[in-house]
Amino acid sequence: MSAIATHEELGTRIEEALRRRFAERSTAAEAYGESFAALWRSAAQHALGGKLIRPRLLLEVHHALAASYGADVDSSAAIDIAAEVELLHYAFLLHDDVIDGDLIRRRRPNLIGALASKDEGEPEGAELHWARSSAILMGDLLLSTSILGFARARVSTSTRLRLLDLIEHTIVETVAGEHIDVGLSDGVIAPDLRTILAMSAYKTATYSFALPLRAAAVLAGASAEVEDDMAAIGQHLGLAFQLQDDLLCVFGDPQSHGKDAFSDLREGKETAIIAYARMTTEWMHIEPFFGSPALSDENGASIRELLRACGAEHFVRSLVADELGAASAVLTAAAETRTLSDDVVRSIRSLLERVEGRSA
Amino acid sequence: MSAIATHEELGTRIEEALRRRFAERSTAAEAYGESFAALWRSAAQHALGGKLIRPRLLLEVHHALAASYGADVDSSAAIDIAAEVELLHYAFLLHDDVIDGDLIRRRRPNLIGALASKDEGEPEGAELHWARSSAILMGDLLLSTSILGFARARVSTSTRLRLLDLIEHTIVETVAGEHIDVGLSDGVIAPDLRTILAMSAYKTATYSFALPLRAAAVLAGASAEVEDDMAAIGQHLGLAFQLQDDLLCVFGDPQSHGKDAFSDLREGKETAIIAYARMTTEWMHIEPFFGSPALSDENGASIRELLRACGAEHFVRSLVADELGAASAVLTAAAETRTLSDDVVRSIRSLLERVEGRSA
Repeated sequence: MSAIATHEELGTRIEEALRRRFAERSTAAEAYGESFAALWRSAAQHALGGKLIRPRLLLEVHHALAASYGADVDSSAAIDIAAEVELLHYAFLLHDDVIDGDLIRRRRPNLIGALASKDEGEPEGAELHWARSSAILMGDLLLSTSILGFARARVSTSTRLRLLDLIEHTIVETVAGEHIDVGLSDGVIAPDLRTILAMSAYKTATYSFALPLRAAAVLAGASAEVEDDMAAIGQHLGLAFQLQDDLLCVFGDPQSHGKDAFSDLREGKETAIIAYARMTTEWMHIEPFFGSPALSDENGASIRELLRACGAEHFVRSLVADELGAASAVLTAAAETRTLSDDVVRSIRSLLERVEGRSA
Repeated sequence: MSAIATHEELGTRIEEALRRRFAERSTAAEAYGESFAALWRSAAQHALGGKLIRPRLLLEVHHALAASYGADVDSSAAIDIAAEVELLHYAFLLHDDVIDGDLIRRRRPNLIGALASKDEGEPEGAELHWARSSAILMGDLLLSTSILGFARARVSTSTRLRLLDLIEHTIVETVAGEHIDVGLSDGVIAPDLRTILAMSAYKTATYSFALPLRAAAVLAGASAEVEDDMAAIGQHLGLAFQLQDDLLCVFGDPQSHGKDAFSDLREGKETAIIAYARMTTEWMHIEPFFGSPALSDENGASIRELLRACGAEHFVRSLVADELGAASAVLTAAAETRTLSDDVVRSIRSLLERVEGRSA
C-alpha cells in the first residue's frame, strides 16, 4: 500500500467514525424535539470536513509504533480514540468562539454564525443569545462525548487508566491556556513574552500535538519513557506550529492561510511577535495601531514592516527553529538509545519536515 | 446510631470528599499561574457550603438498598460518586448562570458576580467578559472532573459501564432541557404546557433526582428493574420539586425560599403556571406585566391574585400532587412485587413526604 493510499484511507476511516457518532447522536436527539435535533445536525456539518490533522497524527504514529513492536496493528481502538480527539478539538473551538465573540472561522460562518443568521444585518439580541447558548451547550455535549469515548475504550485496564490520565491532563492544561489567553485579552494578565509562550504551549501544543502523540504511544502499549518522549516532541512541535500561525497572520499570504490579513493586529492579539516588539523602541510607532478594528491594509503593511525592522519577525522565526530543533534532538537521543525504532523516528521526522516547510 | 447522626455524618463525609477534590485541583492549578489557581479557589468557595441534596439522596438510598441486599455497606465508592454528582450540579449551575446572565444566586454574588466585582457600579466590559469566560472554563473543568470520576469508579466492569451509560444519558437530557429553556426565553420555541413540563423534567428531574436514585441502585448492585423504578420515581419526584419551585416563587414566602418575590414574573420565565394562565381569559390582564423588569411588588401581588383566580395555581398544585402520587404508586407496586424491600420503600416514602411538605 502506498503512503498516499494509507493517508487517504486513514482520512476515510476517521471521517466514517465521526459521521457515525454524529448520526447516532442526531437520531437520539430527536426524542428531545426538533430544535435539539437541528442543533446536532448543524454541529455535524461544521465539525466534519476539517483537515483532521490531530486524528491523522495519532493514527500515523500509532501505526509506526505498533509495527515497530511487532504487534498486530489492530487500529480499531486507535480509530475510536482518534475520533474522540477530533471531537475534543471541536468542543474547544466552540467554547473558544463563544469567548472570543467570533461568528466566522476561516472566512465562513461558524456554528454560532450559522445559528444566528438572519436575512439581513448583523445578528443581535435574542438570535445571538440563542446561537451562543447553543454553542456553549454543544461544547458541553462534545466534551462529554469525547471523555466518555476515552472511558469506554476497548483496551486493557492499565491502558484505559493511562488514557484517562492523559485526557484529564490535556483538558486541564488546555483550559488553563485558554484562561491565560482571556486574561491577556482582558488586560488582567500582563503580556510578557514568557507568559505568552507558556499560554501558546498550554492552549495549542498540549491538545493538538502532545495528546495525539501520547495517545498513539499508550494505545501501542509503549513504555512511559516513550510516552514522555512523545510528550516532549508534541510540546516543541506544537509551540513551533502556533508561532508559525502567528507569523503567517502577519507576514504570510492570506490566500494560502485563509485568515484575514492582519486580523491578529486588528484584534490586538497578544502574540510572541507583539511581546518582543513591546520591548523595542519601534513599539511607540506600532502601539497606536495595535488593536484598532479599523486598521487599513495600508497601515497593516506599515506595521508589518516595523515588526520586521524591530527584529520581532526574526526573533520568532528563531524560536520556531529552536523548537523544531529541540523536537529533533529528542528524536536523535531516542534513536541512539533505541527507545524509538528507526521507522518511528523516520515517521516523526517527516512530520517535523512538514511543519518546517508549511506556508498555510 | 440515630437517623440524625447518620444524616450529619453523611454530610461531613461528602463535604470532605468535595474539599479534597478542590484542594488537589487548586494545588495542581498553581503550575499554571496565580490567576488559574485563584479561579479554582473561588470555585471551591462557591461550590462548597450547599445543602448537598443530591449526594445525600444518593447515599441514603444506597445505604437502604445495600442493607436490604444483605451486602456489606461499603460506601466509599458511593461517597466518591456522590461527590461527582455534586460537581456535575455545580458545572450545570455555572453554565446556566452564564447563559442567563445572572450575577446573583440566592441573594449572594455567584462565581461570575464575585470574579467581576469592582468597588462601585455594575461590572461591564472586560471585567464581565473575564468573569463569564472564567465561568465557562470552570464549568468545562468540573464537567470533565465529574465524568472522569465516574470513569475511575472503583467498581466492577459491569457496574462501571452502567454508571457511564447513566451519566451520559443524564448529561444529554439535562443539556437538552437547558436548550429548550433557552429556546423558550429567546422566543424560538413556543411556550405550550407540554413543552414546559418536558423541559422541567429534562432540566431538573433527570440530574437532581433520577441520577442520584439510579446511581444508588447501580452502586448497590441492584437489577435493571430496580434501576428503572428509581428512574421513574426520580422523574416524578423531580418534576414535582420543580413545579413547587415555580409555585414558591410566585405564591411562597420570599423569607423562606430565598429568591426575590416575583423574580420569575419579572424575568418572564415560562413556567407551567404561565402556560396554564395563557389559555385563560385572565391572560390579557397578566400579559402587559409579564417579563417587565420594573414590575412593582404591588403589581406583582395583583398578578399573583390573577394567577390564583384563573385557576393556574390550583392546576399546578394538582400537577404536583399527581407527580407525587405517581411516585408513590411506583413504590406501592414495587413493594407488592417485593422488587423493593420494606426498608427501602419506607426510606423513599419519607423522602416523598419531605418534598410534599416543603415550604422552601
